[in-house]
Amino acid sequence: MVEASLATKKFQKEMNAGTASLVLLSVLDRSAAPMYGYQIAKLLEDGESEVAMMKQGSLYPVLRSLEENSLLSSAVEPSVSGPPRRYYTITTEGRGALKEWIEIWQQTKKFVDAHLKG
Amino acid sequence: MVEASLATKKFQKEMNAGTASLVLLSVLDRSAAPMYGYQIAKLLEDGESEVAMMKQGSLYPVLRSLEENSLLSSAVEPSVSGPPRRYYTITTEGRGALKEWIEIWQQTKKFVDAHLKG
Repeated sequence: MVEASLATKKFQKEMNAGTASLVLLSVLDRSAAPMYGYQIAKLLEDGESEVAMMKQGSLYPVLRSLEENSLLSSAVEPSVSGPPRRYYTITTEGRGALKEWIEIWQQTKKFVDAHLKG
Repeated sequence: MVEASLATKKFQKEMNAGTASLVLLSVLDRSAAPMYGYQIAKLLEDGESEVAMMKQGSLYPVLRSLEENSLLSSAVEPSVSGPPRRYYTITTEGRGALKEWIEIWQQTKKFVDAHLKG
């Protein structure tokens, strides 16, 4: 049971790895304005899912990785109420990637669900 | 565009990492008898999805990893038509993990789809 539980943590981590990037690109694609990390975390918290799939802390490395891959750009802006904030915007390349990733996500769902149901 | 394409390969790889284990556990859970790698690969090929989500070569490391985590057990049996075959069976721990993983998969789908649709 200890083994199964470790394996489940690994599975959860693997599931989150891809889907976190997909969700962040999608949120920024639909946003009318650039968003900063905390704002995105709050938006995801308000979602239907009761499980916090993406805690704020795990969100920042994903944002940075997306920016390193040129899918997001960012700019630091001063804040009246605290430290400066890094605002993220989706790039043209990011929109292209999102389109491909949504297609991959739909295929993955179809594949997995076909084999879970038998 | 080169960057987006590399990012898409990474995304595909991340999506496959978790789902491959889930699908293999599920297939072996529903199988009345132990199965060997090629047999599983054929079964997955015959599925609805036209995209080969799991090629035979990528299946073996996943089977080995599941066995290392005690979710599968295996036994080598001679074959009349070629080299010996390694037959895999789901363990009790594997069935427990599968139940948890299906729950995680359902939650992940709900979370992602909620944020893709807006």
